[in-house]
Amino acid sequence: MQRIIWAVVLAFAIAMVLGPVFIPWLKKLKFGQTIYDLGPQSHKVKQGTPTMGGIIFAVPMIAVPLILAVGGLRSPYLPIALISTVGFGLVGFVDDYIKVSKKRSLGLTPMQKIVPQVVISAGLAVWAYLSVGSKLIVPFTSAEWDLGVFYIPVMMFILVGTVNSANLLDGVDGLLSGCSLIDFATMVIVCLALPAMKSLNSAEYLDMAVFCGAAAGAVLGFLRFNTHPASVFMGDVGSFTIGGALVAVAMVTRTSLLLPIIALAMFVSSLSDIIQVGYFKYTKKKTGAGKRVFRMAPLHHHFELGGMPETRIVWMYMAVTALLCLVTLTMFI
Amino acid sequence: MQRIIWAVVLAFAIAMVLGPVFIPWLKKLKFGQTIYDLGPQSHKVKQGTPTMGGIIFAVPMIAVPLILAVGGLRSPYLPIALISTVGFGLVGFVDDYIKVSKKRSLGLTPMQKIVPQVVISAGLAVWAYLSVGSKLIVPFTSAEWDLGVFYIPVMMFILVGTVNSANLLDGVDGLLSGCSLIDFATMVIVCLALPAMKSLNSAEYLDMAVFCGAAAGAVLGFLRFNTHPASVFMGDVGSFTIGGALVAVAMVTRTSLLLPIIALAMFVSSLSDIIQVGYFKYTKKKTGAGKRVFRMAPLHHHFELGGMPETRIVWMYMAVTALLCLVTLTMFI
Repeated sequence: MQRIIWAVVLAFAIAMVLGPVFIPWLKKLKFGQTIYDLGPQSHKVKQGTPTMGGIIFAVPMIAVPLILAVGGLRSPYLPIALISTVGFGLVGFVDDYIKVSKKRSLGLTPMQKIVPQVVISAGLAVWAYLSVGSKLIVPFTSAEWDLGVFYIPVMMFILVGTVNSANLLDGVDGLLSGCSLIDFATMVIVCLALPAMKSLNSAEYLDMAVFCGAAAGAVLGFLRFNTHPASVFMGDVGSFTIGGALVAVAMVTRTSLLLPIIALAMFVSSLSDIIQVGYFKYTKKKTGAGKRVFRMAPLHHHFELGGMPETRIVWMYMAVTALLCLVTLTMFI
Repeated sequence: MQRIIWAVVLAFAIAMVLGPVFIPWLKKLKFGQTIYDLGPQSHKVKQGTPTMGGIIFAVPMIAVPLILAVGGLRSPYLPIALISTVGFGLVGFVDDYIKVSKKRSLGLTPMQKIVPQVVISAGLAVWAYLSVGSKLIVPFTSAEWDLGVFYIPVMMFILVGTVNSANLLDGVDGLLSGCSLIDFATMVIVCLALPAMKSLNSAEYLDMAVFCGAAAGAVLGFLRFNTHPASVFMGDVGSFTIGGALVAVAMVTRTSLLLPIIALAMFVSSLSDIIQVGYFKYTKKKTGAGKRVFRMAPLHHHFELGGMPETRIVWMYMAVTALLCLVTLTMFI
């Protein structure tokens, strides 16, 4: 139990040290975000804020569980989580790197992004199928749903979907980092409570709890630099790392079906994007003029253009996330 | 366990409903904060933001534990916590009311404030002495320190000190509400873990955990209106309510000596004020010209005048509070 708390503290400390080291370096290398042309106009002032800050939390997220696992890696699940974090994180890193070095707001082409994601997802889904099994916990019941071999394609969809949803949620200072902080903290409790509930090996899940604790501490440290007014953005390397870590924890704890609840913020980001584009195309085809449901998608930009301050949007998303996580935890405690 | 989570959700919901009801009403009654003349210049823009918003969280903090205790109040400690919350809150309310109705930035005179505080503290300290006993847990040990009858004056000092420290911490949007949110969440865990540790009645402390959960939920809801840019200030009614609730929980869980750690933010606010005033008087006497240690006291104004954005100050205080609370929890779990 105490090991989890030290994981939080250590990851936080590393992020705090890396921030002042990395940020001036990213600035010097001109790794400033080239603000997405389709974002809100008010974001133009953010031009020049360095991106790729996700490295600040990616390093402790990966290093701390390894450091604290010294003396014996007891969990077969920790490698899955680490590979997922690093794998998706690397796709984001390459994307960011291209954006920055070519000074354009689009890095990899959609195809170049999706293919490695699908490959990583396939590997992880098969690995989880073989080591975790094919059951998923059904929300708010004690039942489990055995998908059999369909577990693999379903999990691939969840993996790719979550990682890209995390990416979409990263659009306001401190939004993704704040929401994921709460998600990781929640998953600490899930990892601690799950073994007793499902008669699993608690030592294996303790390692996962340490992983989640480290992720929470790392993201909390990163928020030092990312709360409004942000002095660094996490970039795709950050959002993909968070998405990869979170979905991997959900996968090995069999709680993937809880993701739309505890990570509702990510879920609605994707959903609002899909609705916006779908409705626009539909109305354009029907009437000739495309109509929009939201002022701008993903949803947080809709609120922003409605005049809500960024800090208020972050509060709203974090508060809703916290309450949904608490309600979800009633399943476990 | 689940009762605590529902307390959080219910208190949050009540605060969310009260906000839009109270804030326009406070504005209409011209309960705008008359900004303290000695505060930072930049705060002048906040003139007109309504104060006394503390009522928004005070109501659910008091109502929710009572609602959820229906069917039998099992804890002799809950009345202590409620009386402390209401008692100190009322002193703050009167202070605010005078400020607002007389349109001046000082309400009650220092003596008019301190006398009722001392009276309430004396009553609570005696009550706790008789029902909780005279022992205090020594930080980071399993030892308890039996103060005997000296418990009463020591506890009175802690009560008055904490309530006024909470009042001092309330100077930046979302600062006291954010820090106390973490403190109340921490005290939920303390209330749950303490009985097993000290062989106490867990049902009695479960009621206290519900109280802390309600306080956390209420403050989280209030943050909707109080995060930067704040649409309402909590006022003295808010800061005294928070201080009274927190110190009462510490008192009945015998963890008063942990307050300088988990509520370090409050502690340093008082300490920096004392240092500032003391050093000024000392240097004035010695050299004829008073010198200052901080740009402005309490400490958060020092950071603010140093150019740190309000949101960053709140992050810093909340992050330090969260880490100190986690480290403190290693004593209990």
